[in-house]
Amino acid sequence: MNGADMAAEIMEQPRVLERILGEGRPQIGEVACALRRRGPRFVLFVARGSSDHAALYAKYLVETRLALPAGLVSPSTRTVYHAQPDLRDVLLVAVSQSGGSPDLLESLSRARASGAITVAVTNAPDSELAREAEHHVSLLAGSERAIAATKTYTAELLTLYCLVEALRGPGTTPGGTQRVPAKPAAGYPVSDEVESLPEQAQAVLDREPEIAQLAVRYRFAEQLVTAARGYNYATARETALKLMETSYLVAQAFSAADLLHGPMAMVDRGFPIPLRCPEVLTPVLLILPMQQFAWHLARQRGIDPDQPRGLRKVTRTW
Amino acid sequence: MNGADMAAEIMEQPRVLERILGEGRPQIGEVACALRRRGPRFVLFVARGSSDHAALYAKYLVETRLALPAGLVSPSTRTVYHAQPDLRDVLLVAVSQSGGSPDLLESLSRARASGAITVAVTNAPDSELAREAEHHVSLLAGSERAIAATKTYTAELLTLYCLVEALRGPGTTPGGTQRVPAKPAAGYPVSDEVESLPEQAQAVLDREPEIAQLAVRYRFAEQLVTAARGYNYATARETALKLMETSYLVAQAFSAADLLHGPMAMVDRGFPIPLRCPEVLTPVLLILPMQQFAWHLARQRGIDPDQPRGLRKVTRTW
Repeated sequence: MNGADMAAEIMEQPRVLERILGEGRPQIGEVACALRRRGPRFVLFVARGSSDHAALYAKYLVETRLALPAGLVSPSTRTVYHAQPDLRDVLLVAVSQSGGSPDLLESLSRARASGAITVAVTNAPDSELAREAEHHVSLLAGSERAIAATKTYTAELLTLYCLVEALRGPGTTPGGTQRVPAKPAAGYPVSDEVESLPEQAQAVLDREPEIAQLAVRYRFAEQLVTAARGYNYATARETALKLMETSYLVAQAFSAADLLHGPMAMVDRGFPIPLRCPEVLTPVLLILPMQQFAWHLARQRGIDPDQPRGLRKVTRTW
Repeated sequence: MNGADMAAEIMEQPRVLERILGEGRPQIGEVACALRRRGPRFVLFVARGSSDHAALYAKYLVETRLALPAGLVSPSTRTVYHAQPDLRDVLLVAVSQSGGSPDLLESLSRARASGAITVAVTNAPDSELAREAEHHVSLLAGSERAIAATKTYTAELLTLYCLVEALRGPGTTPGGTQRVPAKPAAGYPVSDEVESLPEQAQAVLDREPEIAQLAVRYRFAEQLVTAARGYNYATARETALKLMETSYLVAQAFSAADLLHGPMAMVDRGFPIPLRCPEVLTPVLLILPMQQFAWHLARQRGIDPDQPRGLRKVTRTW
């Protein structure tokens, strides 16, 4: 079947999320523990394509939940750090499914040489990127065959969420300033809402027939607008990317509450998903029907979602 | 005439640039001098709409020319700093034509209360934002009547460029680490290429008849793609915004060298502008024909560029 790889990986997601919350927990706790001891004061992310959207989500998390300033490193300034800047107290997180991008490797190496604390979040523990970083968190998403990333994207979201939660804590020093607290974190708390994410993801995915119907309706669409804000701005961007990758649509993501039309609003209104989780976790669930939509739309348009034209791994640098 | 305000402000730009390089110089030097003494180690920008594109350019400048890590504050995390994080050593730059956005004011106030060094770059020295910031740099662009920002955008680009240049220096301490050097900067050097920008801007603007022809050709376009990378990614974003604001086009900006089609490439190939300046300064010049293009296109389509539908000042939050 055309698109069998992508379809299989979409459906694998509840199991991947479960794995992250189960066997992934000790590694996340250990890395968080090590990072706390270093007390980072600024966080930078470097990533590309879908991983860049996961990094965007994580940037919001760092700002809102760790209350630390954060930034996304511009990929085209990868030669920035020739100057050997002072990156002490800076935590640099490289996010990459494959861990294979030379640009990310170079960014991370330079940052490390400049004093940054470095973490790689990848699905490839044996990759150069994973080895080059001081700390590595494995996505545990299993091998990825499809070109359009699906399960690694949600794995990145949840892994980064857990990492940030593991870094959280009271952590206010007498001087009134805040650093990431140095308390050991191996048993970092995960709320019931997080624990139920795999089950909720399954419930969302089970509604695929409704999504397939929507794809029929939008078969001849030439452009779609996705809109969201805050934590789900990443969802809007990732949805747009999936539609461009698999269906060659001109899809544009807006970060504006008043632009709620296009497929995102469609799902909001015509396809009410009963999400029983806090807003901060919704990106893990809301992307699922959009992945299915992208898959079905491609098929409706006679495109094999596993063989997108001229694309291998997208390295679009937003 | 429809669009008279926007047309006048487009043509005013060479004089605004000249003013920045002339009377603007002492204030930029003084602010830079004060900032150097504080030795910022991390730079955050907060802005909206066109100013956000100028901030994107400035973020590249900070990364490449100051070799400091930098980030854009996500507008929807403006309540971030409730947590009173430690923003010592952080330079927060708010960029705003009007200085009137409550969100920016709140972001800046919170950042200042959290220890950040704060600078406002505005065209309104009497605005609350300007007063709330420790330091203010005035854009000197004169009063702005048109809704679509043009002269304030290029004024922001050049002002931020000059500010970054004034902050530059050798500044390597014996430990091999780098801070912004503390050397006084009132007489910061400006290269000949910068000095000739106003003249070059005039030469670019004088080619308006060719742009008017292009607008006729694209009269019925429904979507346009702009593409650029590095310093000019801001140009691609600002061009797309101008086209959306004035002509209601679906315009999408890509940051990818291989997506060089759409109006940007059109200008590159069919309309070779002899730019005699280093790449870092090209954004100040390349946006000019795009502003003219947006203006002419709107008029071709029967739209008054001074009365865009349903828009006052755009607060799109990319």
